[in-house]
Amino acid sequence: MARRTVVASKRLNLKLADAYRMLDNLEKFTCLKRDIAEINIDPLQRGGILTPAAREALIEWGDGYSVCDFCNGAIDQIKNPPIEEFVHEALPEFLGIDEVRVTHGAREGKYAAMHALCEKGDWVVMDGNAHYTTILAAERAGLNIEFVPSSGEPGYAISAEGYSDAIMRAYERKGNVSMAVLTYPDGSYGNLTDAKAVAEACHDNGIPLLLNGAYAVGRMPVNARDIGADIIVGSGHKSMAACGPVGLLGATEELARSIFRLSSTKKNKEVELLGCTVRGAPLLTMMASFPTVVERVKHWPEEVEKARLFSKRMEAMGIEQQGDKPHNHDLMFFKAENLYEISKTAKKGRFFLYRDLKERGICGIKPGLTRQFKLSTYQLPQEDLDKVIKAFEEIIESYKRPAKV
Amino acid sequence: MARRTVVASKRLNLKLADAYRMLDNLEKFTCLKRDIAEINIDPLQRGGILTPAAREALIEWGDGYSVCDFCNGAIDQIKNPPIEEFVHEALPEFLGIDEVRVTHGAREGKYAAMHALCEKGDWVVMDGNAHYTTILAAERAGLNIEFVPSSGEPGYAISAEGYSDAIMRAYERKGNVSMAVLTYPDGSYGNLTDAKAVAEACHDNGIPLLLNGAYAVGRMPVNARDIGADIIVGSGHKSMAACGPVGLLGATEELARSIFRLSSTKKNKEVELLGCTVRGAPLLTMMASFPTVVERVKHWPEEVEKARLFSKRMEAMGIEQQGDKPHNHDLMFFKAENLYEISKTAKKGRFFLYRDLKERGICGIKPGLTRQFKLSTYQLPQEDLDKVIKAFEEIIESYKRPAKV
Repeated sequence: MARRTVVASKRLNLKLADAYRMLDNLEKFTCLKRDIAEINIDPLQRGGILTPAAREALIEWGDGYSVCDFCNGAIDQIKNPPIEEFVHEALPEFLGIDEVRVTHGAREGKYAAMHALCEKGDWVVMDGNAHYTTILAAERAGLNIEFVPSSGEPGYAISAEGYSDAIMRAYERKGNVSMAVLTYPDGSYGNLTDAKAVAEACHDNGIPLLLNGAYAVGRMPVNARDIGADIIVGSGHKSMAACGPVGLLGATEELARSIFRLSSTKKNKEVELLGCTVRGAPLLTMMASFPTVVERVKHWPEEVEKARLFSKRMEAMGIEQQGDKPHNHDLMFFKAENLYEISKTAKKGRFFLYRDLKERGICGIKPGLTRQFKLSTYQLPQEDLDKVIKAFEEIIESYKRPAKV
Repeated sequence: MARRTVVASKRLNLKLADAYRMLDNLEKFTCLKRDIAEINIDPLQRGGILTPAAREALIEWGDGYSVCDFCNGAIDQIKNPPIEEFVHEALPEFLGIDEVRVTHGAREGKYAAMHALCEKGDWVVMDGNAHYTTILAAERAGLNIEFVPSSGEPGYAISAEGYSDAIMRAYERKGNVSMAVLTYPDGSYGNLTDAKAVAEACHDNGIPLLLNGAYAVGRMPVNARDIGADIIVGSGHKSMAACGPVGLLGATEELARSIFRLSSTKKNKEVELLGCTVRGAPLLTMMASFPTVVERVKHWPEEVEKARLFSKRMEAMGIEQQGDKPHNHDLMFFKAENLYEISKTAKKGRFFLYRDLKERGICGIKPGLTRQFKLSTYQLPQEDLDKVIKAFEEIIESYKRPAKV
């Protein structure tokens, strides 16, 4: 480097150093370790644990835009790595739908579909158990929401008739109903509504149904065509053993023409996806886990069996499972008046349950919850579930004795 | 498991196996290796190479929703890992702007800002060198575009006067101009327009300026406040040594109120971000690389010096650098009539350059390009740049001799 430049560099470096003077001690953002227990029963986490193959993919494809080395302008058409085959062949078959694209997650897929298919001011009908992101997606798209109320405690059931009624109510308010959404299962109770019947009710009114399968796709068999869903979203980080953020958006051929419409000026670029979505390793983790995911879906009946047995043993302790009974999903909601009673006098109050479980190597129930909480048994071996049950038993038992001073 | 269930399971498993019969031979989606050369001069890739700390973060936080273990409802408020401090303290100072949020990337940030601040049918003014995603973001938001034309070959310069003129043209068409965008630098020529002058021109017309810093933030010093930019976007995978998809969106306090507005019904949830954005490891890679990124930005003058020297040596071979001269960024565009001439007779035609460079351990120029191409010298040691120069020299020389049969 010439001397003149070195001097100029030094001067600028000093100026820069000054500008960023407050940005010191940044090491706190590095070398961070995850603080979780051995057994994690958080429903949000159970389906997203990486397979060894996904972990390898993460290392191999970690750098920035790695998947774009051989891109010709559209991420879903990249042949090396074989994203095109994954997106245009494997995924449509897996979901039972005509067209699929990769998204940043279920919520982004819902928004893309709503934004493409609904006009501002339209109405969208959704189940009362809908995830908050469905509500936000509708709000962002400027839509009004008509809810299908659940049956309330303890079943929180959603019915097809509820959809017909909600659509009618929206019509009565002179609303243009342009979409219905069913959360399948919902993220609170893990209820699997009769989606086929809901699809029929929607179609009878000429309304397309979006199935939010964030907790289904990748865990259990879901076929949009069999159900009659017109649009389906899934979540890689929630249920497909992928590193977030990554998800799926599938649509029938007819609706795909609108949702995946091409730009009027930029060749090969899909407007609703802003060209490309997941331009990095999370997509490769989803691909790497895919063979395992396809296989594990086949073993869904065993997962349901495990969940039912777990529910039965929790109920034997006086902790009531809410939602569908017998239950059909690994995500379960429990009401525990006995734990709530303990929290009134326990040391650390309502945080006792979190602490006492963590001491026993278990995490995933939100700190502070005792009276009601959700958890998941997904992909946990029976011996781990036995440990969880034993932990609850021990904790309840321990507070029966007078507290030691 | 009870016998009845086992039988039922087996029956269902057979049915499922049948349903997924075509989903076999999926191993092709696993164990994929990246096929790149030792030296990668692709501008898209140079700034996204992970630091060792980011690589560690990827492994530690790879699972699904890992960053959400201790979430209370908003990703930017998570204290463990320290996302809150990163988003609300470190990043605003780094960018010189009041409020920052993490996004999926620069394009998603641009769309969020446009969707929040502009009405459908409004006009947005942008430089003629704008990245295609700025155009897509505007198209998705239903906006009309008025371009600020560049000066054309060879400088492709964008002027502040051009912005004033474009705003006037949009007004003359009875348009409501609600935003201006400047690509800083643009992704074709690496030109660094006088952003301060552009901001003044926009503000004189009462129009906020969005600075697209996808190739700036994380590579070179950028301070939105000094420039007068009202909104700024950055890209983690492009320029912050992070795993994609992840980016930044910053705004002044006033505009942040609209862009990051809260849901009317869901507490703590920001509508335009659909609640949370990057709910996975890419965010942690951005954090882990941040100390290194802050440091490398201070060494920007050395990067500029390297780029200028590289440009000079390319020009000595008869390959003309386009855009700003002397150049102020590592991203450079070259016109090579001599390589184009070679492509007319070379074996494999226009693919000769890709092949000949790859044989010499160099990749990053799109296969098939010869007459014009872009590349980046960013973070490449001088000895690697020497190898690149030597490769071009050798290739040109080799075609001067009559081809061997």
